[in-house]
Amino acid sequence: MSQSFDIAVIGATGTVGETIVQILEERDFPVGNLHLLASIESAGHSVPFRGKNVRVREVDAFDFSQVRLAFFAAGPAVSLSFASRAIAAGCSVVDLSGALPASQAPRLVPEVNGDLLVENAGPHLVSSPSASATALALALAPLRSVLDIVRINVTACLAVSTLGREGVAELARQTTELLNVRPLETRFFDRQMAFNLLAQVGAPDESGHVSLERRLVEEVRELLALPELKVSASCIQVPVFFGDSFSVSVQAAGPVDIAAVNELLDCAPGIELVDAGDYPTPVGDAVGQDVVYIGRVRGGIDDPEQLNLWVTSDNVRKGAALNAVQVGELLIKGYV
Amino acid sequence: MSQSFDIAVIGATGTVGETIVQILEERDFPVGNLHLLASIESAGHSVPFRGKNVRVREVDAFDFSQVRLAFFAAGPAVSLSFASRAIAAGCSVVDLSGALPASQAPRLVPEVNGDLLVENAGPHLVSSPSASATALALALAPLRSVLDIVRINVTACLAVSTLGREGVAELARQTTELLNVRPLETRFFDRQMAFNLLAQVGAPDESGHVSLERRLVEEVRELLALPELKVSASCIQVPVFFGDSFSVSVQAAGPVDIAAVNELLDCAPGIELVDAGDYPTPVGDAVGQDVVYIGRVRGGIDDPEQLNLWVTSDNVRKGAALNAVQVGELLIKGYV
Repeated sequence: MSQSFDIAVIGATGTVGETIVQILEERDFPVGNLHLLASIESAGHSVPFRGKNVRVREVDAFDFSQVRLAFFAAGPAVSLSFASRAIAAGCSVVDLSGALPASQAPRLVPEVNGDLLVENAGPHLVSSPSASATALALALAPLRSVLDIVRINVTACLAVSTLGREGVAELARQTTELLNVRPLETRFFDRQMAFNLLAQVGAPDESGHVSLERRLVEEVRELLALPELKVSASCIQVPVFFGDSFSVSVQAAGPVDIAAVNELLDCAPGIELVDAGDYPTPVGDAVGQDVVYIGRVRGGIDDPEQLNLWVTSDNVRKGAALNAVQVGELLIKGYV
Repeated sequence: MSQSFDIAVIGATGTVGETIVQILEERDFPVGNLHLLASIESAGHSVPFRGKNVRVREVDAFDFSQVRLAFFAAGPAVSLSFASRAIAAGCSVVDLSGALPASQAPRLVPEVNGDLLVENAGPHLVSSPSASATALALALAPLRSVLDIVRINVTACLAVSTLGREGVAELARQTTELLNVRPLETRFFDRQMAFNLLAQVGAPDESGHVSLERRLVEEVRELLALPELKVSASCIQVPVFFGDSFSVSVQAAGPVDIAAVNELLDCAPGIELVDAGDYPTPVGDAVGQDVVYIGRVRGGIDDPEQLNLWVTSDNVRKGAALNAVQVGELLIKGYV
């Protein structure tokens, strides 16, 4: 490609923002000028790109008409404040915050529903879904042709990096303290995270669900184009640094043909199906990879209408940064 | 009680066997002579009981007519070899191995189906179920009066102590190596367990299920007296030393009354229901406790026929040793 595009990355000093910059370089994204932006606290840092250090500037003062495409990886408040400003300046936006309503910013996983992007001049406003919904949609979308999916049960085992660098640092610190038999001091998490499981990620609403769970359900329905799908979602925080894992049980309206499921998964895009008998792990397989790993494909015990899966994915990469860049690649194919 | 009973504990040097001895002492079980038995490799060790060290002898040479009650906590092979010999010698058996068929050795959780024990002279042969089935039965049994349970989905997050001392030692060793940036050498687990999740605990059969999962399904059906219940079970190994946790989703035949569920769980035996908004963790709540902790009691998202729960339990204690001792307490109430 000879054409290049001026690009902004907002939240460039965070785990996901930094990975977006890395992936833009890895995938030879046709970046012209790269503008790295962040809140006032992080402005002044620099992030490496193509052998140079790019200085991070404050998003507040940025003129979005300088760029054609902006990745928003700085959290809900920043997206709510600046995404519409970017669009108004003629800049397309890929938002990773989940804060923008689906009606304004449809969720896109290119392998699943990339065909929804209408070819027009833009600017476009698109959401890159949560890591959980992206992984689940990649795993389940190919199966819609052989399964009439009635209900999905998901236990999402989330890595501490879901909560950014502080989550990672706190798990490391707590683990070290415990192994050195020092009294545990909790800081970022409100209780012991090392060698423990936390059953609630964020504050629950009145009915007991947390926003991550509601977001997962809403996004999976949208990505699979099954708006009425029943989804039971439980997000738990596990003492794993990187890589989310999902224990998934699908209930179908009729008998599940496990061989057909395996065949479809084996050739679906964005997926690596491991051999029967083996299983993927976040650390050993998913982390650092561009695909979502699937294993333990099996039916139910005395239940022919059930399908069980184990899915694991790099939450920072395919779950966030890579998917956003892939959406960006679609956008610049004539659409931006 | 003035009467005392001569007791044997087989597998006395293992995590569970040692805890049985501890709990017999804690609960003032009317032990006369205590015989501690194990395989030839562990014979000669000693285990403390009531201020003395009791020497562990070889099970092979033991004359079971010396005792009225034996706890088998040494694994399937030992139970298969010696349980019938014990019964033939007039000794009642509480087996923790899961190796004996339900038709010979019914599974018992005293709070759930203790009334099944028929009052007769014995000897009795009773199974203490797996930690997972015990926790799930305690959580779900009280709900049968308000819920017509159609299906249960369980992701069981098992502590490494499920695999005994070696599992515990290996998680500690791996964690230390990784924190010291030493190359990881796997020994007991076939891959990295520290900061990772393993989706398969044991070898899968042809249809992809592992024996722990089949055992869980079978035992839950038996304990709840719902032989046709559909149960989807996924057992995963998590980097937690002690305490199993269960992400449970129940599908009912009609709308679930969450308030009624909370009320029932609040007064059910063997259970501690944590306040709405809070949640229990294995390390912070369950470990060292005699009850199973339940939290995150909530309905489904747009699904009135769903109930979701988080359950956590000390896998060695209530999940194994304590339940076995409680069964023993029932047996000596005139039945042994």
